[in-house]
Amino acid sequence: MQHQTITIGLAGYGTVGSGLVQILQNNRDWIRKRLGKDLRIKTILVQDLQKARTSVPPPETTLTLEIHDLVSDPDIDIVVELIGGLDTAADLIIGSLKSGKSVVTANKALLAERGPELFRLAAERNLGLFYEASVAGGIPIVQTLKESLAGNRIKSLTGILNGTANFILSEMTSACMPFSEALAKAQDFGYAEADPTLDVEGLDAAHKLTVLIRLAHGQDYPLSKLPIQGISAVDPYDIVRARDFGYRIKLIAQVKEKSGALQAGVYPALVPVDHMLAKVDGPFNAVLLEGNAVGPIMLYGQGAGDLPTGSAVLADIMSLVTRRTEYNNTGFLDAELYPAKILQPELTVSKHYFRFSVQDRPGVLSIISGIMGERNISIAQVVQKQEPDGNTVPVVFLTHAAQLQDVQAALQEIDQLSFIKSPTVHYSIL
Amino acid sequence: MQHQTITIGLAGYGTVGSGLVQILQNNRDWIRKRLGKDLRIKTILVQDLQKARTSVPPPETTLTLEIHDLVSDPDIDIVVELIGGLDTAADLIIGSLKSGKSVVTANKALLAERGPELFRLAAERNLGLFYEASVAGGIPIVQTLKESLAGNRIKSLTGILNGTANFILSEMTSACMPFSEALAKAQDFGYAEADPTLDVEGLDAAHKLTVLIRLAHGQDYPLSKLPIQGISAVDPYDIVRARDFGYRIKLIAQVKEKSGALQAGVYPALVPVDHMLAKVDGPFNAVLLEGNAVGPIMLYGQGAGDLPTGSAVLADIMSLVTRRTEYNNTGFLDAELYPAKILQPELTVSKHYFRFSVQDRPGVLSIISGIMGERNISIAQVVQKQEPDGNTVPVVFLTHAAQLQDVQAALQEIDQLSFIKSPTVHYSIL
Repeated sequence: MQHQTITIGLAGYGTVGSGLVQILQNNRDWIRKRLGKDLRIKTILVQDLQKARTSVPPPETTLTLEIHDLVSDPDIDIVVELIGGLDTAADLIIGSLKSGKSVVTANKALLAERGPELFRLAAERNLGLFYEASVAGGIPIVQTLKESLAGNRIKSLTGILNGTANFILSEMTSACMPFSEALAKAQDFGYAEADPTLDVEGLDAAHKLTVLIRLAHGQDYPLSKLPIQGISAVDPYDIVRARDFGYRIKLIAQVKEKSGALQAGVYPALVPVDHMLAKVDGPFNAVLLEGNAVGPIMLYGQGAGDLPTGSAVLADIMSLVTRRTEYNNTGFLDAELYPAKILQPELTVSKHYFRFSVQDRPGVLSIISGIMGERNISIAQVVQKQEPDGNTVPVVFLTHAAQLQDVQAALQEIDQLSFIKSPTVHYSIL
Repeated sequence: MQHQTITIGLAGYGTVGSGLVQILQNNRDWIRKRLGKDLRIKTILVQDLQKARTSVPPPETTLTLEIHDLVSDPDIDIVVELIGGLDTAADLIIGSLKSGKSVVTANKALLAERGPELFRLAAERNLGLFYEASVAGGIPIVQTLKESLAGNRIKSLTGILNGTANFILSEMTSACMPFSEALAKAQDFGYAEADPTLDVEGLDAAHKLTVLIRLAHGQDYPLSKLPIQGISAVDPYDIVRARDFGYRIKLIAQVKEKSGALQAGVYPALVPVDHMLAKVDGPFNAVLLEGNAVGPIMLYGQGAGDLPTGSAVLADIMSLVTRRTEYNNTGFLDAELYPAKILQPELTVSKHYFRFSVQDRPGVLSIISGIMGERNISIAQVVQKQEPDGNTVPVVFLTHAAQLQDVQAALQEIDQLSFIKSPTVHYSIL
């Protein structure tokens, strides 16, 4: 890209697309000072040419309905894919790479589902396929893993990767409101979509975790094998109890390396209040890494929104322009991604939180703790605080470190006892 | 650097140098997987060939006393400067660049003092002069400012950049110990040097701030114009009072952009406990940025130490190897740095903390608050908590936002009053 103006084809003019346009307008002089070139958006792919838009596209751009107008325009140097979804986005990216254009995408779902195929194609053509905006909005976690920490073995990575879920849990914690009410507030604020499933059921965080596992370990961890649990079942009662014990409940995405195998998952967990991730509130995201040289590192910032995510897209564009020829998309020499060696989640060892709903009668605690003892689950704290509600009383147990498969077996046995009145609530502790 | 092995000349085999060697040994296979090349240290410049070393240099390396053996060895691709200090380090870097070798350095003092000259030379020769390790140890703040946030105007940057000072303040806060005792503990732990002046008097943080200002704003802010205040005069009494008000005292390095001018300084300040920087304890560092697109971003990690800083040096080496030809040292197209447009520190507006030592008699508070009122300093809280010690009592004021020059004028007037028994203690509030 030797010429003075870099021409961009933009696919999608929603939140992030209009954020990008706004940054390019506001920071034009600054970008020229950094880059020595102008960035110009020539064509924008939209779904509806007539749609009324709050953010008006720049006058020099053309709107189009046809992918072809981006892919086949010889003027366009870089295609920016912000339409989301799988099939059309894949067609656009594949078409662009085949036409010799580097691509910037924010599409975590597509990278999680079809990343290996796309990275292979980009490597074959020696083109850039950059995706800083796909994980954690404006936080430069992709660049950090791909370059700054490239010489480190990443022993663990723990993230709060979904701002919507984090906002909802923060509201539930600070205002003691039920999930449904917090979700409605998130929708009012524009943090949650009309259909919030991807966010609240953990799938969006899982897509992002898949992208990060690839960057940190050079391995392809299939989404279908990742244990995923969302937050829609989180009860404010447990948030309050957790707080009394000195914990916050957060939706955590985590991968750990143990003897060369990976243990990964997305799930709500109890985070100690003095842990750095416990302070990550509202729509913010954070990633805490442990490298074998750098030790612990945390990156924190806004995980979504027009300008933060637009900033990440712009970083990729500027990076493509300055690199010119050497594209490193996966952070590994070999673009081929090897299937992850997966450590079964059942073998995970952590502390645990249980809330049993028991019939208030003598001997109950002894039976429960007896079953846990048989499974090598050692109890750290027990609290029976609330007054009996009719005949049922919640009893909260915090355990010492125990293996998940022992916990699951114990819970299965306990939940069949006649004095257990509803399924036991269970969270891991970070 | 097309060949299969990249040959490094290492100057300095202290903490960071031996950390780098250790990482290269431990992560050799991993680095090859990332880079497709081996990194080999051929020669190490030391001050004493006979010195007993806890970390033995690798057998295939040669120790030397002569800079010439690094600078003039045609086998050496990259020179890593970890000797610190000014003159010899400058000779080494200038000599290396003139011999066509890219350089990696951790030398913040040299970059702060002679950065413009060195960057100019590197640009003339189209060589890399990389310095990730010079600021905040293993935290990738240089890379983040130079690339990931390059499209942002940085409105403010607030850092805890000296781990020694932060450790000392953390100890003073948690164990309520005086400065001298906390310093002795830092020295025991190896966090503080025998002569801790650079760290505790804020100069080291000032060097780093100068480097960050250059990266964020493309301007050269002369060290001589930077207001610098250390922590050696911090009294545990104020730490306790600040804590009662909901603040922590931290050594802060800050730059803000106001209408194109820069307001910068290094000083101990009160940080609200719910601020992200308040949680940065012990030897950790953090940088909180506010970009005009990305919003707030924080990077957190270990600011010093063999492996964390070695990790940053390695990141630069790997970056030099993968980039091959396009070197971007300052983050701006033009390597020439413009003198910063400096906004006088006296114009800074913030909230303030004062501790007056007053003679316990009627009318005193009224006189003090009268003088402050005349200077437009509005009082938010007053606490006179401690029992009178003899005839003198400490009175703590927290103000609303006020301009520093008004505060200084008021304090000068107040400190001349007969009932003021010792100079007033004053901190800004973040």
